[in-house]
Amino acid sequence: MNNFNFFNPTRIVFGEGQIKEIDQLVPKDARVLILFGGQSAKKHGTVDEVTAALNSRYSEEFGGIEANPSYTTLMRAVAQIKDNKLDYLLAVGGGSVIDGTKFIAAAVNCEGDPWQEILVNSAKDIHTALPFGSVLTLPATGSEMNANSVVTRYQTKEKLAFKSPLVYPEFSILDPTKAYTLPPRQLANGIVDAYTHIMEQYLTYPVDAKVQDRFAEGLLLTLIETGPELLEKPTDYTLQSNFMWTATLALNGLIGAGVPQDWATHMIGHELTALHGLDHAQTLAIILPSIMQEQREHKHDKLLQYAERVWNITDGDDDSRIDMAITKTRDFFEQMGVKTRLSDYQIPADAIPTMIKQLGEHGLNQLGEHGDVDLDKSRKVLEASL
Amino acid sequence: MNNFNFFNPTRIVFGEGQIKEIDQLVPKDARVLILFGGQSAKKHGTVDEVTAALNSRYSEEFGGIEANPSYTTLMRAVAQIKDNKLDYLLAVGGGSVIDGTKFIAAAVNCEGDPWQEILVNSAKDIHTALPFGSVLTLPATGSEMNANSVVTRYQTKEKLAFKSPLVYPEFSILDPTKAYTLPPRQLANGIVDAYTHIMEQYLTYPVDAKVQDRFAEGLLLTLIETGPELLEKPTDYTLQSNFMWTATLALNGLIGAGVPQDWATHMIGHELTALHGLDHAQTLAIILPSIMQEQREHKHDKLLQYAERVWNITDGDDDSRIDMAITKTRDFFEQMGVKTRLSDYQIPADAIPTMIKQLGEHGLNQLGEHGDVDLDKSRKVLEASL
Repeated sequence: MNNFNFFNPTRIVFGEGQIKEIDQLVPKDARVLILFGGQSAKKHGTVDEVTAALNSRYSEEFGGIEANPSYTTLMRAVAQIKDNKLDYLLAVGGGSVIDGTKFIAAAVNCEGDPWQEILVNSAKDIHTALPFGSVLTLPATGSEMNANSVVTRYQTKEKLAFKSPLVYPEFSILDPTKAYTLPPRQLANGIVDAYTHIMEQYLTYPVDAKVQDRFAEGLLLTLIETGPELLEKPTDYTLQSNFMWTATLALNGLIGAGVPQDWATHMIGHELTALHGLDHAQTLAIILPSIMQEQREHKHDKLLQYAERVWNITDGDDDSRIDMAITKTRDFFEQMGVKTRLSDYQIPADAIPTMIKQLGEHGLNQLGEHGDVDLDKSRKVLEASL
Repeated sequence: MNNFNFFNPTRIVFGEGQIKEIDQLVPKDARVLILFGGQSAKKHGTVDEVTAALNSRYSEEFGGIEANPSYTTLMRAVAQIKDNKLDYLLAVGGGSVIDGTKFIAAAVNCEGDPWQEILVNSAKDIHTALPFGSVLTLPATGSEMNANSVVTRYQTKEKLAFKSPLVYPEFSILDPTKAYTLPPRQLANGIVDAYTHIMEQYLTYPVDAKVQDRFAEGLLLTLIETGPELLEKPTDYTLQSNFMWTATLALNGLIGAGVPQDWATHMIGHELTALHGLDHAQTLAIILPSIMQEQREHKHDKLLQYAERVWNITDGDDDSRIDMAITKTRDFFEQMGVKTRLSDYQIPADAIPTMIKQLGEHGLNQLGEHGDVDLDKSRKVLEASL
């Protein structure tokens, strides 16, 4: 096991009807900004439910935070907070709203240029942030229990991430019934996103981290057991609750503590989204099976462990078991309705050089757990994804 | 899955040589009391290592905290803290030292009688506690990452527990090499203690909490895989590190979130320790197999799941698989060198009525996940343990 430093102070309040707990969780004298995305949080009554739980506290609303939240939009929220002297944030939504809220929380007290200070300089000179909580409506990214955020500046086509212990949510309400009304595509994307998060912290090389491996495998098995049925029955409380808790634990730092990680799938996928507008999860479903294939020698031992413990594949020689495990992974994504080939999205071979060029321009030429996924290897991964 | 509220803000700093990180974790101007138990923490140099890591900070020592820490001893530490205006505590040891430090941290600012306010009244009127960290040398109780504490008043033969969010350690250093010098009996006891903690949060009735079940099973499998070899090779870093992290996760709130729990084994075991002086883990090794046997109807479904997923028992009818799972559990404890029968400790059948009387006097007549382990059932459990 590698050395690690694990810290996660976010309180999780889990279960149907738990939004009412906000009254116990938010300071009595808080002046609250409720942040949300499109109209669904309003339409389905979740924003009203949150407002009711805030009781007599002063609150305002800020809607319209986009998928891949925009710097410009978020800075409008910062202005509203300053103008109206608000001091507590409540994010109601999925990863984009929560990510955006983290940026806003850090930007409010930022003396310099927030883009520069928080995103370009990785928040290293940021020492305060507004406190905030979240109400999760879209299980997928794990943002409700981590300190990561990604913000996009559409004007300059930059998408940057930051991480700061100042932006852990103080609490997150996980009410599985709030995900009942998700469109099937978002639900399926969430399953693929969570699955890939787990794989990127699991499928590297063995370091005898037995607990982390068992936990990662337990989360993967839970997604495999619940995913297909959940797509058919999105209002099944048991299925939805198991998925929601799995997606949170997939990226709260626990399974990644003390093990090597390989975020090549996410990094290559980001370029696909940037250049071709694919959903984030679609890019993961395309890239992960190809990473498994192209890196099968490095990942040999863990691929065999994954084959046996997650997919119960024990027959055949090493190579055939690994082949089967990769096929099972691809089939699972397809079963979720997320296509796994570039051609499924009408992206041809001649689009690859531009993506490789972008990876190079973003300095992403040493990806993977050994840093050996260079631009040539990424090209092979994309070619294998056609 | 049941509703739950999960919160755990303790930072874990894991790995060989990590005691030096104390310099980053303790406030620069802290006046520190280093607390430890017997002489081993001094003899093996851990206290000196902690003092060195504190650099130029003022520090004092307080040794001699007993296994089952004594109220009188702990109150002497409280006096030392007040006399010398100390403001940060560092516990160096296992569960007893850390439990004791939690009580001390809460007692220092307690205006009334600390026994009454913290233990009898369950700390409900306690609003502040001194901050503290821990350096774990004995993996077993999980105290390094939870807010629980047990204190004994020997004068009146009372052993009471309290729990308060104020007494989460700010950080715990988990350096597996610090457990290398543990006596084999303490190491074995730690394995049995951790195993039982997991079982008490797992072996109840199914509530479709797939992740919690998988995590619990993963921890049990890790103990089964590492325990026997670890007893032979206590200085094997990989084995010791997997055991240490497992023991911490066994009782940090995660696997118990959203599931029923059954602490009957601990409760009945406490009377065995109180009346016959057995090690805590010895009492667990005696009682758990009998609880499994006597409650096999209530625990039927989870016993079968445990048999299959943890012990790979798939042949035979339900009853024979359950029998086998109970036998495997008992055999594992015996393999750890911890005997599982009252007769192994020269406790005869005619000692049982006194234990039942004590349970009754302590109000412990509604134990178990259904509250149906009354005094008669506890008597049957003890008789089955002869």
